[in-house]
Amino acid sequence: MSDKIRVGIVGGTGYTGVELLRLLSQHPQVDLAVITSRKESGTPVDQIFGSLRRHVNLRFSDADDAALGACDVVFFATPHGVAMGQARQLLTAGARVIDLAADFRLRDPAQFESWYKMPHACPDLLAQAVYGLPELGREAVRSARIIGLPGCYPTSIQLGLAPLLELERSRPASIDCDSIIADCKSGVSGAGRKADLDLLSAEVSENFRAYGLGGHRHHPETVQQLTVLAGRKVGLTFIPHLVPMIRGIFSTLYVRLRSAAALDLQGLYEKRYAGEPFVDVLPAGSAPETRSVRGTNTVRIAVHRPAADLAVVLVVEDNLVKGAAGQAVQCMNLLFGRPETEGLAHVAVVP
Amino acid sequence: MSDKIRVGIVGGTGYTGVELLRLLSQHPQVDLAVITSRKESGTPVDQIFGSLRRHVNLRFSDADDAALGACDVVFFATPHGVAMGQARQLLTAGARVIDLAADFRLRDPAQFESWYKMPHACPDLLAQAVYGLPELGREAVRSARIIGLPGCYPTSIQLGLAPLLELERSRPASIDCDSIIADCKSGVSGAGRKADLDLLSAEVSENFRAYGLGGHRHHPETVQQLTVLAGRKVGLTFIPHLVPMIRGIFSTLYVRLRSAAALDLQGLYEKRYAGEPFVDVLPAGSAPETRSVRGTNTVRIAVHRPAADLAVVLVVEDNLVKGAAGQAVQCMNLLFGRPETEGLAHVAVVP
Amino acid sequence: MSDKIRVGIVGGTGYTGVELLRLLSQHPQVDLAVITSRKESGTPVDQIFGSLRRHVNLRFSDADDAALGACDVVFFATPHGVAMGQARQLLTAGARVIDLAADFRLRDPAQFESWYKMPHACPDLLAQAVYGLPELGREAVRSARIIGLPGCYPTSIQLGLAPLLELERSRPASIDCDSIIADCKSGVSGAGRKADLDLLSAEVSENFRAYGLGGHRHHPETVQQLTVLAGRKVGLTFIPHLVPMIRGIFSTLYVRLRSAAALDLQGLYEKRYAGEPFVDVLPAGSAPETRSVRGTNTVRIAVHRPAADLAVVLVVEDNLVKGAAGQAVQCMNLLFGRPETEGLAHVAVVP
Amino acid sequence: MSDKIRVGIVGGTGYTGVELLRLLSQHPQVDLAVITSRKESGTPVDQIFGSLRRHVNLRFSDADDAALGACDVVFFATPHGVAMGQARQLLTAGARVIDLAADFRLRDPAQFESWYKMPHACPDLLAQAVYGLPELGREAVRSARIIGLPGCYPTSIQLGLAPLLELERSRPASIDCDSIIADCKSGVSGAGRKADLDLLSAEVSENFRAYGLGGHRHHPETVQQLTVLAGRKVGLTFIPHLVPMIRGIFSTLYVRLRSAAALDLQGLYEKRYAGEPFVDVLPAGSAPETRSVRGTNTVRIAVHRPAADLAVVLVVEDNLVKGAAGQAVQCMNLLFGRPETEGLAHVAVVP
Repeated sequence: MSDKIRVGIVGGTGYTGVELLRLLSQHPQVDLAVITSRKESGTPVDQIFGSLRRHVNLRFSDADDAALGACDVVFFATPHGVAMGQARQLLTAGARVIDLAADFRLRDPAQFESWYKMPHACPDLLAQAVYGLPELGREAVRSARIIGLPGCYPTSIQLGLAPLLELERSRPASIDCDSIIADCKSGVSGAGRKADLDLLSAEVSENFRAYGLGGHRHHPETVQQLTVLAGRKVGLTFIPHLVPMIRGIFSTLYVRLRSAAALDLQGLYEKRYAGEPFVDVLPAGSAPETRSVRGTNTVRIAVHRPAADLAVVLVVEDNLVKGAAGQAVQCMNLLFGRPETEGLAHVAVVP
Repeated sequence: MSDKIRVGIVGGTGYTGVELLRLLSQHPQVDLAVITSRKESGTPVDQIFGSLRRHVNLRFSDADDAALGACDVVFFATPHGVAMGQARQLLTAGARVIDLAADFRLRDPAQFESWYKMPHACPDLLAQAVYGLPELGREAVRSARIIGLPGCYPTSIQLGLAPLLELERSRPASIDCDSIIADCKSGVSGAGRKADLDLLSAEVSENFRAYGLGGHRHHPETVQQLTVLAGRKVGLTFIPHLVPMIRGIFSTLYVRLRSAAALDLQGLYEKRYAGEPFVDVLPAGSAPETRSVRGTNTVRIAVHRPAADLAVVLVVEDNLVKGAAGQAVQCMNLLFGRPETEGLAHVAVVP
Repeated sequence: MSDKIRVGIVGGTGYTGVELLRLLSQHPQVDLAVITSRKESGTPVDQIFGSLRRHVNLRFSDADDAALGACDVVFFATPHGVAMGQARQLLTAGARVIDLAADFRLRDPAQFESWYKMPHACPDLLAQAVYGLPELGREAVRSARIIGLPGCYPTSIQLGLAPLLELERSRPASIDCDSIIADCKSGVSGAGRKADLDLLSAEVSENFRAYGLGGHRHHPETVQQLTVLAGRKVGLTFIPHLVPMIRGIFSTLYVRLRSAAALDLQGLYEKRYAGEPFVDVLPAGSAPETRSVRGTNTVRIAVHRPAADLAVVLVVEDNLVKGAAGQAVQCMNLLFGRPETEGLAHVAVVP
Repeated sequence: MSDKIRVGIVGGTGYTGVELLRLLSQHPQVDLAVITSRKESGTPVDQIFGSLRRHVNLRFSDADDAALGACDVVFFATPHGVAMGQARQLLTAGARVIDLAADFRLRDPAQFESWYKMPHACPDLLAQAVYGLPELGREAVRSARIIGLPGCYPTSIQLGLAPLLELERSRPASIDCDSIIADCKSGVSGAGRKADLDLLSAEVSENFRAYGLGGHRHHPETVQQLTVLAGRKVGLTFIPHLVPMIRGIFSTLYVRLRSAAALDLQGLYEKRYAGEPFVDVLPAGSAPETRSVRGTNTVRIAVHRPAADLAVVLVVEDNLVKGAAGQAVQCMNLLFGRPETEGLAHVAVVP
């Protein structure tokens, strides 16, 4: 046991929590030491999630700073605002922190406050935090003490746009950075496990709708990161939609090409992601489908060019894995020098 | 307008409420006068249910005894316990009362209290109430002042068993009344529109489960009515299951036959329901499906006999129509001398 | 009976067929006289579609030119290529023809041949055919002899874009007509009732995917009509996606605005569709949902402007009603001088 | 590689095939050597099933007796009737055969012919075949040369009834063996990947129906095996239903108890399955749900006693895993002396 990574989880009664438990309980180098939940303190984990019977024998405990501080890494699968309140103490105790919520995503504390309606509790720690998207910043992740994990939509949009934005950075005026459109569709688990009328089965099934039209919190986060990638200001229109299915994000990205007549889009993407274990660029002409990544940490990308001046990039992701818990485990592997794919080699459950 | 039935609805933000509104707004002889909701007072009905735009122009109002009392009939699409608190006043004002909840289903106030965890507010009115299942008691419905509408499961079980139980009453020892099994499956709208984690789309989809194994409130109601039909005590095992779909109940009923070798099951059912506008006995050998009655007030029944001593009766129903709002409108038609099928002639939306 | 419209249907075992039957069997002025199907000749209609029991008593018959020719109107709910083979004879016999397939959509026979892989059988009749989208050409529909009904996607895209394109026609350079994007999502019934592995429940459920990326037949049709509306060439990128639900189309339309700073988008749409019984412009800020039009002939539209130079138009439609059978009935009403909404006043079945 | 089990698959384009590939590609001791499909010969496996990209690099090949004969074990994921035609040759070549279809399930060739409408090709091999349900006959599986894998329904029914039937065998007259009822519900993947109108998404979604009422092939198989367990003739009524979901079987089993007043049902089941890695008897009072075993080889069972003389046993299973491919791998592990759970320790993907 002594060589294993000692892991604590704060929260864990939501969907990113149970997904973390699924992945970590099958990870060969993890010692799942403690999981806390104020509300369910004392309850066996497998009583809330029957699927974990015989796999997770823990009980939820009250927030327990000592036990958490003794961990090598603590995941926060909590509502926004919890991690920033406990991070300092855990860091002091020697643990690393990976927040699956939004506390360490936005670099600007004022922007955080504006979107999440609470002041940031620790702007100094925020300044140290690393944005946990390994494919776009692997080295920073390796040496991080605090990781702010990307949102589910931003992960898919960034991975879908990175090759074009990096091209723009190296060869300005290749694309039109001011008018990017992300028409995104998500399964309902992305909204979390909360008792909300809008998320009832009888409301969601056999229905398709847009939402967040007045502004979605993943918009400033995505723009912040795209701007880093492009090395210039990016204009993004982001329209999220709700799909009547449990898991999966499908992002359809529209990018105007400028002086790009000779651009080999397919080659650009294949080259950019060659060697990436979790990004699969599909053959030219492909149409990805969300189920092909269900339960896995893989993102699949197809690129199309319906007109000379338009790139259409299609990205599929499991919002709870690469969009949350899987990416968290990937970051953990990097933090502790483990093979990046360890515990993440699942094959999608299809059909 | 003066010839129309003046209708009030108490509650109406739940699924039986919106279904009542769908049916009543298309009923040619109904004047939808008032709808109350404490929580949504002032809100236009079509703001909660966008599907009613251009069909229902009412706003929810606060409970308003005067306006309700001026109605010819008041439907309660409320939680259990509300109708019994307001019924006396409405009756005094001259309105008839149709309760879609359970206040007037169980004849015995003590049994009501035991299952619904509240004392009955008006046992004297309960004694007058009529059980609103027209096919099994049409005349009583016509002259009722208060109608307690059956639960969704009980409607399907009673209609499925009535021919056999009536046979037993007229020819005792035809069937084994002590060991009837009702293996029932319901879509999720039967649980109502309430913010409950168990009803979330991500919990219900791609899942099938049993529930209510410790005892379901529809059990005593069903046994009470089956006993009336059989003229003797009935033993019923009732196992409800949740189906990942919005609407529909499918009841698979198992009845042991005793001295019934010569029984013509198919003929028994066809004869019993000949002329019933809302009960369709399918041809021998049929397998009913819930979608064939979706959105309609029809129940379809198939009877099978896999062994000489066993009848298997399959019943499909839309839990929100014949299991709730449609049956309420059917009762209203009877109460006011209208054609029983008026406003209820919808064809199922298939696919 | 003599005043009623005598109706024949060719085909009718597919989803547009059963939907036509649902609508026509409830239409007060229709006499459903004959329905043909080579494959199901002799079979009672309600044996294929149990939902029609007690509503449609016809049997499918062999193609019967005499019986069809005696009808006032014949609907073709057939695969592409059937109507154009039978139209001349029916017209000669005095019937009007409404084709729900593609035979009379594309004005250019060469384009028809290119997309549908068969020569057009009657270019002269094609020249007479009217495109059956009443909101964008009501008078032509009234006097048509042959109607080519729009595809399901094109209906939603045209109604969503018409106010902007008509603005462009009257005030050129208001919008960028060269870069319109239609990101469309459809339920699976749009693909028809055919035995295709890709349409199996186990393939479609819990999955979201794009398709038709190499070119979709609705693209040339839409461009043809948008060009008429704008009075100039239109460049459209059309990306269809498959949603795991039965009914519904959701079109998210992106239009770049040019010299349009002072444009009142909301007002433009409300004014354009004021008085239209089947087009409902939602209040500013709304997010439409497909279920709000399920089973109805209504289209609901919301307009947004996330940036000064971008209009985002959201359109919902039931692909089998306004996208097919309902629009067909609407055209029939116009053809025979009936109220346009007759038989089409259904309230959506929600939930 | 030399220590690994060399595996061939015949068929493999259906749902049990892709599930075998999912499990075997993650099995640490398997060398997936050859997969054949006449129809898809030459096609890369991951082109049919995109979820297998980067996990399975094989191409489908034509039936190739040499390559298959060189395998240690050959799985048949084919339609009924294929395995019995190839088994002898493979056995002669030294391979073991595991048939996921029905060729080696029914002991009586005449019964096979009656239900599957073809004569049995090798009754002598049938006589040697072992019924592959390890929990009810582990030793026979270990030494088998041919394994006929149980059907999906029979697996759940047998595991659900075994403790009671074994009780009956040891203490006759404990239960009523003549009137057992199995009310079973299955997700649609159980019907296989075939182009059948009844399996279309638009037919299956939002619908619940019974089927196979005229007799289902799993009935004689189940009766055969229950009779072995009880040591006497068993009377079983089996009513299968189709659930609008992809995976999962839920069997609700009703057994009349006779001289069983003192019976400790819960204890009986817990004791019987103590130590079984893939059978989980839930705590008293539990309601199992199919998703808790999705993607896993586990069966969960709850036992209830709503009346003194009635046992209700609820069983959940993933029809493609414990009901097919997982059980096949479990048998393979036993055949080759591997740990029984090797490659089968997946945690269910929930939600």
